[in-house]
Amino acid sequence: MRIGAIGLGSMGLGAARALRRAGHDVTGVDPRAASREAFGLPAVASAAELPAGTEALLVLVVNAAQTRDALAAAAPSLAPGAVIVSSATMSPAEARALAAEWEPRGFHFLDAPVSGGAAKAEAGEMTVMASGSAAAFAAARPLLDAVAAKVWELGAEPGIGATVKVVHQLLAGVHIAVAAEAMALGIRAGADPRALYDVVTSAAGNSWMFENRMARVLTGDDAPRSAVDIFVKDLNLVADMARGLKFPLPLATAALQLFTAASAMGEGQKDDGFVIRVYQAMTGITLPEPD
Amino acid sequence: MRIGAIGLGSMGLGAARALRRAGHDVTGVDPRAASREAFGLPAVASAAELPAGTEALLVLVVNAAQTRDALAAAAPSLAPGAVIVSSATMSPAEARALAAEWEPRGFHFLDAPVSGGAAKAEAGEMTVMASGSAAAFAAARPLLDAVAAKVWELGAEPGIGATVKVVHQLLAGVHIAVAAEAMALGIRAGADPRALYDVVTSAAGNSWMFENRMARVLTGDDAPRSAVDIFVKDLNLVADMARGLKFPLPLATAALQLFTAASAMGEGQKDDGFVIRVYQAMTGITLPEPD
Repeated sequence: MRIGAIGLGSMGLGAARALRRAGHDVTGVDPRAASREAFGLPAVASAAELPAGTEALLVLVVNAAQTRDALAAAAPSLAPGAVIVSSATMSPAEARALAAEWEPRGFHFLDAPVSGGAAKAEAGEMTVMASGSAAAFAAARPLLDAVAAKVWELGAEPGIGATVKVVHQLLAGVHIAVAAEAMALGIRAGADPRALYDVVTSAAGNSWMFENRMARVLTGDDAPRSAVDIFVKDLNLVADMARGLKFPLPLATAALQLFTAASAMGEGQKDDGFVIRVYQAMTGITLPEPD
Repeated sequence: MRIGAIGLGSMGLGAARALRRAGHDVTGVDPRAASREAFGLPAVASAAELPAGTEALLVLVVNAAQTRDALAAAAPSLAPGAVIVSSATMSPAEARALAAEWEPRGFHFLDAPVSGGAAKAEAGEMTVMASGSAAAFAAARPLLDAVAAKVWELGAEPGIGATVKVVHQLLAGVHIAVAAEAMALGIRAGADPRALYDVVTSAAGNSWMFENRMARVLTGDDAPRSAVDIFVKDLNLVADMARGLKFPLPLATAALQLFTAASAMGEGQKDDGFVIRVYQAMTGITLPEPD
């Protein structure tokens, strides 16, 4: 299958490589030369340079605006009936608007946000939360088979995939923020951080994010696997979606303010669990140092 | 070992039975006749009626005030060097105050809150988060062996066990509240609640509480295994501890307000995941009905 892999960032690069490994004819697209070099040839700086007859697009860019621009640039290169797999995290309204724009032009559109992190992407084992027509799923199947360990088929209407992803990010963001809040309080109260971690991760207070992110806080390792600014972006998406629905979100709102504070402090490019530095700045607690 | 098991509630009853199964000479204590009947003989209404020469107390009542009253009543019956295992959830300051009161009188004191729920208590497999002197741990060992699958030895000073338990309850309470927030938002946005549950529980947005509590929301089963009012109590303990430390808790505070709202709505004795009814009341979403 002739595929354009648009966006060679932490997820997109791995997914593009997985597509190539599966035998597809993949052209990588990224304006950053270093990202194109990491992928190898063929790679182009703009979706306008995709080869004619491209049958599928995997769009793994930052947001809806970048997705919109990439699709406009790619359009002249697309084969009739090509499938667009739209995997950036965006609001349900944005996903529906994109589908409404591209389906009438004879293309299939799959609202298909992903999760799993860079390692899973590299292994071709992402989780895809998708909605769209049966025809869109069928057209995208060879692509999905190459990049995903699990494809959730959430409904026939674009927007449901985005909804589930946004709700998932609400949980993920609040879980990271409360992990930081709890660890910081425990440290201030005199608990040993490692013992607290061991107790929580073996008990009913555990979350996937507490276990994963606080392990890095315990070793002072703030290199970003997923950065604070990603949750500033994603929790703002949550807030936008809820505002449109007139839906109050006391917890997600508090978490968004904490990530915003961390970013304002200059920690935006640090690993997201280091939102704990907001509590450190407020209370003067001593965080674990790198070994 | 001659043991007084004070408090035959959802955790205390199971723990008392586990002690008896292990061959100890156990007297149950509870003012409620139904609870004494569930335990069988010997059981008494007040700790003042414990047999002379009681060597150990397991105190599994609601809070520090009940613990204080029970110890005062039990004192004349205690053997010299008896060990007090104090397992009610209370603030670290309260745990330290109780230890400071009873250790100078020649008793051992273990600050030993528990978790695990009624089923684990019945099986003698609670998790105990304990701190206290080596002598207190040694004296309590036969009792702990009978009731616990895991005993965390968190330090030599009373108060650390309580600290870790309170921080654990912060996480547990926020995880339940945000599970409700996310599920409610997903329902409002048109996601299928069961599909949302399946995606989240297989992804990085999962928590132990989301998985456990939202399963009951999906079937409309609001019979209380752990009631809303327990988290009103425990998150107020969290708030009290943080106030004493001048420690800001944006997320735990928001969660406390949600549980308080649920209790004000008359849902205090419902299963704690039904804090989701606060979102239902605010937004008019339709929750799953019992099958």
